[in-house]
Amino acid sequence: MIIVIQCTDRVGLVAAISGLLAQQQFNITSMHEHVDNTANLFFMRLEVNKTGDVEGLEENLREILPAGAIIKINPLPEKKIIVLVTKEYHCLADILVRNYFKTLGASVQCVIGNHQTLQDICLRFDVPFYLVEATGDKAAFEQNIVNITEKYEFDHLVLAKFMRILSHDFVSRFPMQIINIHHSFLPAFAGASPYRQAYERGVKLIGATAHYVTDELDEGPIIAQQIIPADHSLTVPDMVKAGKEIETAVLARALKLVFDDRVFVYKNKTVVLE
Amino acid sequence: MIIVIQCTDRVGLVAAISGLLAQQQFNITSMHEHVDNTANLFFMRLEVNKTGDVEGLEENLREILPAGAIIKINPLPEKKIIVLVTKEYHCLADILVRNYFKTLGASVQCVIGNHQTLQDICLRFDVPFYLVEATGDKAAFEQNIVNITEKYEFDHLVLAKFMRILSHDFVSRFPMQIINIHHSFLPAFAGASPYRQAYERGVKLIGATAHYVTDELDEGPIIAQQIIPADHSLTVPDMVKAGKEIETAVLARALKLVFDDRVFVYKNKTVVLE
Amino acid sequence: MIIVIQCTDRVGLVAAISGLLAQQQFNITSMHEHVDNTANLFFMRLEVNKTGDVEGLEENLREILPAGAIIKINPLPEKKIIVLVTKEYHCLADILVRNYFKTLGASVQCVIGNHQTLQDICLRFDVPFYLVEATGDKAAFEQNIVNITEKYEFDHLVLAKFMRILSHDFVSRFPMQIINIHHSFLPAFAGASPYRQAYERGVKLIGATAHYVTDELDEGPIIAQQIIPADHSLTVPDMVKAGKEIETAVLARALKLVFDDRVFVYKNKTVVLE
Amino acid sequence: MIIVIQCTDRVGLVAAISGLLAQQQFNITSMHEHVDNTANLFFMRLEVNKTGDVEGLEENLREILPAGAIIKINPLPEKKIIVLVTKEYHCLADILVRNYFKTLGASVQCVIGNHQTLQDICLRFDVPFYLVEATGDKAAFEQNIVNITEKYEFDHLVLAKFMRILSHDFVSRFPMQIINIHHSFLPAFAGASPYRQAYERGVKLIGATAHYVTDELDEGPIIAQQIIPADHSLTVPDMVKAGKEIETAVLARALKLVFDDRVFVYKNKTVVLE
Repeated sequence: MIIVIQCTDRVGLVAAISGLLAQQQFNITSMHEHVDNTANLFFMRLEVNKTGDVEGLEENLREILPAGAIIKINPLPEKKIIVLVTKEYHCLADILVRNYFKTLGASVQCVIGNHQTLQDICLRFDVPFYLVEATGDKAAFEQNIVNITEKYEFDHLVLAKFMRILSHDFVSRFPMQIINIHHSFLPAFAGASPYRQAYERGVKLIGATAHYVTDELDEGPIIAQQIIPADHSLTVPDMVKAGKEIETAVLARALKLVFDDRVFVYKNKTVVLE
Repeated sequence: MIIVIQCTDRVGLVAAISGLLAQQQFNITSMHEHVDNTANLFFMRLEVNKTGDVEGLEENLREILPAGAIIKINPLPEKKIIVLVTKEYHCLADILVRNYFKTLGASVQCVIGNHQTLQDICLRFDVPFYLVEATGDKAAFEQNIVNITEKYEFDHLVLAKFMRILSHDFVSRFPMQIINIHHSFLPAFAGASPYRQAYERGVKLIGATAHYVTDELDEGPIIAQQIIPADHSLTVPDMVKAGKEIETAVLARALKLVFDDRVFVYKNKTVVLE
Repeated sequence: MIIVIQCTDRVGLVAAISGLLAQQQFNITSMHEHVDNTANLFFMRLEVNKTGDVEGLEENLREILPAGAIIKINPLPEKKIIVLVTKEYHCLADILVRNYFKTLGASVQCVIGNHQTLQDICLRFDVPFYLVEATGDKAAFEQNIVNITEKYEFDHLVLAKFMRILSHDFVSRFPMQIINIHHSFLPAFAGASPYRQAYERGVKLIGATAHYVTDELDEGPIIAQQIIPADHSLTVPDMVKAGKEIETAVLARALKLVFDDRVFVYKNKTVVLE
Repeated sequence: MIIVIQCTDRVGLVAAISGLLAQQQFNITSMHEHVDNTANLFFMRLEVNKTGDVEGLEENLREILPAGAIIKINPLPEKKIIVLVTKEYHCLADILVRNYFKTLGASVQCVIGNHQTLQDICLRFDVPFYLVEATGDKAAFEQNIVNITEKYEFDHLVLAKFMRILSHDFVSRFPMQIINIHHSFLPAFAGASPYRQAYERGVKLIGATAHYVTDELDEGPIIAQQIIPADHSLTVPDMVKAGKEIETAVLARALKLVFDDRVFVYKNKTVVLE
C-alpha cells in the first residue's frame, strides 16, 4: 500500500506519522520524505505492509497532520490513461507494448489520433483508436476529443507526440492530468521545431522533457529530462531520429514515476520521491 | 550535527528514533534510511539542528535501539587523512587543491610517496611530503610508512594512484580506513594493467572504481564507480590519459561521501545514504 | 551506396581509394577510416552517391588494394534476421515494433522461441513464430533450430534474451552471424545470473553488452555497451527490471550499427565506424 | 604535425589532398573531415608524420584547394593563454595544475583577476597574477586588462569564471580568441544567476557550456557542453557546488579541443573534429 502526504512542514511530522503507523501495526518498507524549507512544505511517500485498519487510516493521519494536508492512500496503484497521438509511433508503441505485457503500471483505455497513421498498431493490440481530424475549427476539434474522453474513466491524458497545441479551455478541464513529451531539454527550445532550433544554435547535447501541461506552452512542471550527445555531423533529420530514442525513454520514465505515485507538484515544479 | 546509525532492523525504529529526537527538541533537517531485508539490517543518517542535550544523546539512542547498534554523532565532520602516491599527479593535485581551498571536507596531514615526483607539488601547498622508496624488502617499506603514519592523527589513508600492493599485515592495521582508486570498472579488469586488459578485450566503456581496501586485492567494498565511452580508436596510452579524468572525479566523489559520513559498510558492500 | 573495406595498411590507401572514386564520378558523402597500427590493418566505410559504374567497382578497388582485402559494396543495406527468444519480451517487442514500422534496417524473417510465451506478440505483428522446446537432448534441440533457419534466407541470428547456451557445433555454423545481448557490463559478470553477481559484489553501476557469439561463452567481440547507475537500494529483481531498459537500448543500438555496415571484426574486437 | 583546412566544398577534395600528401611522402596517421552540405563547406584535420617539405606545403595545398581556403599547419601545437578570473577557484586551479604538469597543451602566460582572492594560488605555481579592480569605469577597467595582455604573446583569453560582462569594444579586439565557461546548458538560462533560474524552473538536469565569446552575451559558438542530474532536493547553493565539478570538466575539455586544433568556427557554430 502506498501513502502519499503533502502538507505544511512542522517539527515532529516524521515522528508523528511513523509513530501512528507503528502503533497501528503498519510495517513501513520504504519511506522517502522531502522538505522545501523556502516554501515550508513537507512531502512524504511511504510503502507499508497493509495489516492494520486501512478504513480509518486517512482520518487518523489527518488528525495528526497540519490543516489542509493532501493525503492519498492507494491500495491499488494501477492507473487508467488515454493516449493522444499524431503520426509518430515511437512513444505510443512503447506504451502499447508495456500495456500489453502489464508492465506499464496503468491500463490504456483508448488512443485518440488526429491522423489515421497509428490506428493499425492500436488495433493489433486490441486498444480502441479514435480518429479526430484537426480541421480548422479548434474548438470543435477539442470538443470531439472531450466527448471521447467522457466515455472512459481515466487518471491521465498522455500526449505521446501529439503535435497540436491545446487551448486554455481544454487544459483547464484536466489540471495536472495531462502529461506531454517535448523534444528538447526545456526551457531551451520551447515551441515549434526544437531540433531545428538546436541545429541552428549548434548545441552539443539534445534532450527530451516530460512535463505536466499547463496553460503556458512548454512551461508546466517538469517530471523527467534526459540528454544525448550531439555534434556537428548531425543534420536536423538525424537529430529527429536520434531524439526519438530519448523521447521514448524519458516519457516511459516519467509515466512510471507518475503511475507509482512518486511525483508531487507545487509552485510549477515537481518533487519526485524515488 | 550528523547522526549515523547502523543496527539490526525491527518494526518501529524510525518512529522511535524520530520520536526521541523530537522530544529532545532536535529538529531533523535531513533523514535517509535504508533497510536490507535479507540481512535484516537498518541504516540511517540524520542531519539535525543541535539545540538539545548532545551529551546524553548517544546513551538515549542506545536505550531505544537493538543491542549492538553502531551510533556515531559527529558535531564536526572534518576528517583527517594521509595520502599515498607514486608518480601520477591527477588525483593528488585535486585533493591538494580542495584541501587548500578548504572544500575537501578533510585536512591532508601529509603525503607519502614511493617516488620523489610529487614532492614539489606538495611543498607548493605546504603539505609535508615523505619519500619512502620501495626497495626489495616489502616489510621494511611498509614499516617505514607505518612509522610516518604514527606521527599523525588520521581517519583515512587515501591511495591516490599508489601503485604498490599492500600486504595483509599492513591492510589489517587499518580496517575500513584505506580508500583506493582503481582504474577500471571493477570487478572487470582487477589486478595489473587494467587499461591494457580493456584494450585487449575491446570494451566500449572504460571506468574507475573507488573502494575500501581489504585483504583481497581490488575486492573490497565499492564506494563509487563511473565510466566514460571508449572505442576502437583509443590506444592503451589514450585510455590511460582519458582514464585520469574519471579516476580523479570518482575518487573525489568517494572521498566526499566518506567525509560526509554517508557510507556504511557491511557484507563487503556499501550503503551510501545521500 | 555503402562501401566497406578492410585490408592490410599501407601508405597512400586513402589517396588511392578516394582518387579512384573521384575519377569514376562517385561523390563521397561520408568517409570514416581507422588504422590499427599494432595489427597493421586499415578499415574504411564510405557512403557515396551512386552515379558511376557499380559493376566494375569492386574489381577496380581490388586492383588498388593490398592482396586479401575484404570489400563489400551494398547498394541495398537492408538485412534479413531470425530472432531467438525465451520468455522475456522487451528486446523482441522493440525489434518487432521497429520491423513493423520499417525502421529496423532489417526484416525479421521469423522468431524461434523455446517457450510459447512470446508467440502471441509475434502473431499480432504477422511474424512467424516457431516453438522449439528445450528438452534434455541439446543436439536435437539445436538441430530443430537449424532446420527452421534453413527455411529462410538470413544475415544474422539475434539472441534477444535467448537463455540457452549454444554448443560449439551450432555457433561454428554461423561465424560472426550470431548477435547476443548479455545483461552485464562484460567482462564483469559473465555467465549465469549477472544481476545476482552484481548485487553480491555491490557495484554502483549495472550494464548490458551486445556482442557477437563465439565459442567462448560471453567472450565474443563486443559491439556496444552501456550502463546505468545502481545503488544499495536495488534488490536483484529491481536490477532485473532496470536492466531490461538498458538491454533493449543496447541491443537496438548494436543492431543498427551492424545493419548499417558499420561494424568490422578482427582479433576478437570490433571497429565501429560511425 | 597537424594540418587544418576549411574551404568551400567540391567533389574530389579528399582525393586531391590525400594524393598531394602521399606524393610528398607525408604519412597520414589521422584524418577527420566534415562537409556541411547546406553551407557547402569542407572541414578537415590531419595528423601527418613530417617527413616531406613542410616549407612549400601550404602553398602546394593552396594550389589544389578552392580560393579562400583557410589552411593552418602547426608543427608545434603548444598554445599560449591568459586566464581571467574573479573569485571562484575551481576552473583556474585545474588549469594551473595541468599547466604545471605540462598536460594542458598550452602555457599560461599570466592570470588577471578583478579580486585578490586567487593571487596566492597563482604565485604558488609561479604564474604572474595581475589585480585589476572593477571600478565604476568599465572602459578604464577593460583598458587596464588590455594593457596587461599587451605585455604577452597569447593565442587565447580564457574566462575561467570571470564574472564581468565584457564590452563590444573589448570583445571585438579578440575575435574568436576569448573562451568562456557558462554555468548552464545554453541556450537555457543565459544571463545572470543560471542556477537560480534552473532552481525556479525545476529542471532535472543542470549543465555547463564552454563557448567562444561574441558580442551577444552567452550567444557565441558552443565548443563543449555537459550535464549532471539534478532533483528537487538541491537548493541553489547545492546546485552551485555540484555545478563547479562540471564547469571544471567542460572547460578543461573545450580547452583541450581548441589547443589540439580540433575546433572550426562558422555560422556561429563549431565543427569539432576529434
